[in-house]
Amino acid sequence: MSRYLKDFPLLQQVDKKGRLPVYLDNAATTQKPQAVIDAVASYYKVSNANPHRGAYDLSVEATKVLESAREKVKAFIGAGKAEEIVFTKSATESLNLAAKSCGMFLKEAGDEIVLAVSEHHSNLVPWQIAAQVRQARLTYMYTDESGRLPYEEIKSKISERTKLVAVAHASNVTGSVNPIEQVIERAHKAGAAVVVDGTQSIPHMAVDVALLDADFYAFSAHKMLGPMGVGVLYAKEKFLLDMPPLLYGGDMIEYVEEQSSTFAFPPQKFEGGTQNVGGVAGLSAAIDYLNSVGMNELQAAEVELTAYMLERLHEVPHLKIVGPDCLDDRTGVVSFVLEGVHPHDVATILNADGIAIRSGHHCAQPFMRHLGVQSTCRASLYLYNTKEDIDRLADSLKGARRWLGYGTE
Amino acid sequence: MSRYLKDFPLLQQVDKKGRLPVYLDNAATTQKPQAVIDAVASYYKVSNANPHRGAYDLSVEATKVLESAREKVKAFIGAGKAEEIVFTKSATESLNLAAKSCGMFLKEAGDEIVLAVSEHHSNLVPWQIAAQVRQARLTYMYTDESGRLPYEEIKSKISERTKLVAVAHASNVTGSVNPIEQVIERAHKAGAAVVVDGTQSIPHMAVDVALLDADFYAFSAHKMLGPMGVGVLYAKEKFLLDMPPLLYGGDMIEYVEEQSSTFAFPPQKFEGGTQNVGGVAGLSAAIDYLNSVGMNELQAAEVELTAYMLERLHEVPHLKIVGPDCLDDRTGVVSFVLEGVHPHDVATILNADGIAIRSGHHCAQPFMRHLGVQSTCRASLYLYNTKEDIDRLADSLKGARRWLGYGTE
Repeated sequence: MSRYLKDFPLLQQVDKKGRLPVYLDNAATTQKPQAVIDAVASYYKVSNANPHRGAYDLSVEATKVLESAREKVKAFIGAGKAEEIVFTKSATESLNLAAKSCGMFLKEAGDEIVLAVSEHHSNLVPWQIAAQVRQARLTYMYTDESGRLPYEEIKSKISERTKLVAVAHASNVTGSVNPIEQVIERAHKAGAAVVVDGTQSIPHMAVDVALLDADFYAFSAHKMLGPMGVGVLYAKEKFLLDMPPLLYGGDMIEYVEEQSSTFAFPPQKFEGGTQNVGGVAGLSAAIDYLNSVGMNELQAAEVELTAYMLERLHEVPHLKIVGPDCLDDRTGVVSFVLEGVHPHDVATILNADGIAIRSGHHCAQPFMRHLGVQSTCRASLYLYNTKEDIDRLADSLKGARRWLGYGTE
Repeated sequence: MSRYLKDFPLLQQVDKKGRLPVYLDNAATTQKPQAVIDAVASYYKVSNANPHRGAYDLSVEATKVLESAREKVKAFIGAGKAEEIVFTKSATESLNLAAKSCGMFLKEAGDEIVLAVSEHHSNLVPWQIAAQVRQARLTYMYTDESGRLPYEEIKSKISERTKLVAVAHASNVTGSVNPIEQVIERAHKAGAAVVVDGTQSIPHMAVDVALLDADFYAFSAHKMLGPMGVGVLYAKEKFLLDMPPLLYGGDMIEYVEEQSSTFAFPPQKFEGGTQNVGGVAGLSAAIDYLNSVGMNELQAAEVELTAYMLERLHEVPHLKIVGPDCLDDRTGVVSFVLEGVHPHDVATILNADGIAIRSGHHCAQPFMRHLGVQSTCRASLYLYNTKEDIDRLADSLKGARRWLGYGTE
């Protein structure tokens, strides 16, 4: 898919040694095409004003930018109504906002929240707090050793005591795509609502939240070519109508008296304060870009590239994949360890070769503990990566142990 | 100060009738100089990565962008330590975060929170919620009819029952600069902490939070030439150490177990989720721009322009200033009503002349009720406004009543 590379200015920046960067940390954040950078700049050059509150053309224009982006997001994820799309600053804010709904579901002490042990902290710590506040129980679905969520776990852990289930669509550690259809079906049968962390899925596959019947679905713009500072929470309208806001202030109120207030209807109820319209304009351009590629085409190309990455990683002596070592139900996020070398050292050695990968606990400490590793290396792909990137990764990895004095094998 | 106009591309955009825009809604959001637009674009073209978590050069570079901006904000507002600067998405988030401290101050039912009646909803509704949660009392300091906060009110309302005081440094409705030195002195004597909404002051005057001895001080980037999607909360370190986060998730934790977590030290504790580094790079460039102008020079020029605006508005028949009709302790925010014409209609008529002003309740409904008006027109200045802007405003206002059939006087 190298034909997209030319659209990404940062990936054209050669280093002091004349090398193009190999950027393989796309699960953390993606690079931005010129079209997205231009959309943000253009907003500030042509359309900038505070939306919703103005009787002048520029404010009307800013409102159009914001609301047309909401329509675009709605269509991109298959939501029923634009009112079900709430703009936040990040997936983390989206998930914290979703957790504000806990009082609607957790009515009695001992009610259960069920999580996958593989959750990112942003879809885990908010539920710990919710459980503390509501005297609820946190129960975990455990993965197998390759990071897969077995149906037996889903079936045995989600019961009539379960009121909420929080699960990622795809893991940011192993790339495993969770069987969220099964989770949602089981949860709904038990009368529980499901919060899906879509941060690692929305950028990489076609998602239809209505078809999935997800109750909440969270993701961020910056992992799908958009700017930082914009997140999305989709939620079914019936939940948005009843749940409390996370932020109180301008634009989310109806009437404010000295001692009490009433609030606007969704999505405004959840969008207190001046919105990041410039950022949202960038997200809108990112969706245009992804639509022009085609999400199915993008996914097919990522699968092909992931296959090549797994193949090349298998050639590296003493390298062990952490997660599913196959192409079924996985994204282009691949975690691995190199025997005898700390993942941080691997990342540092690769950096010297101009290759950016992540090392650490990937904001998923309980999962790392469950998998029996303290940290991993993680290489994660996106549409601009090439086979050459992967060749450079594999070659550098082959040298890493040698570099540390382990010899050639 | 028209010499700055050339730096602002949006203000060069002539409309269909060949007119330059007259933008007088700076209290809602400001326009951006090319340097700020370029700083955001440059971040995405050269430095973009997820900060804090990477062992590769680009991530180190992104971390530098974020942390050097924190140092710059610290110096700009006179904070003691960079750790006292928390990045948020907006002043509204900053104030909601400050309100998370309420449990540290409101220990017993009946403890008091004291607000000025002139507060923006973002510094009012969060305290209503805090009062409900903590069974506290909300007490208001009332302004006089010109929107001034008399010392008698400060003295009589802040007492030993008071545990928290929330007050704006400058009003977004009347432009009145509140005597926050007196408020802070009185509050501290009573043992209460003070949360200052600096949204309308930081962009318009030199502020030293340490000299003021403010406990919390909130503002946003987009009202000071910076991009949308970035806010700041300054708070004294002792409070940040003890107060709970607003958002739980990535980068704000220390250790996460399945059932409980410990959190990082400030400011990271309050910065869960990927930060808006691109936006922060823009804020940094905005501060550079403001420093190059000089905040005292900027304020002096705004006072001069405000004087001219008040003078020209006095010439408009049937126009009444809502707020202080003088230059002492005021910013360039001027509210007014035109007898017999609804403020929304005034704004619409002015819009036809290419002039952008705000009309409405300015997110301050209790204050409007206190002042006995339902809504006002508001013209608010910034460094790029000119006497010609004000001439066009005054001329259009003179025509507004005539336009609605009131005759020439």
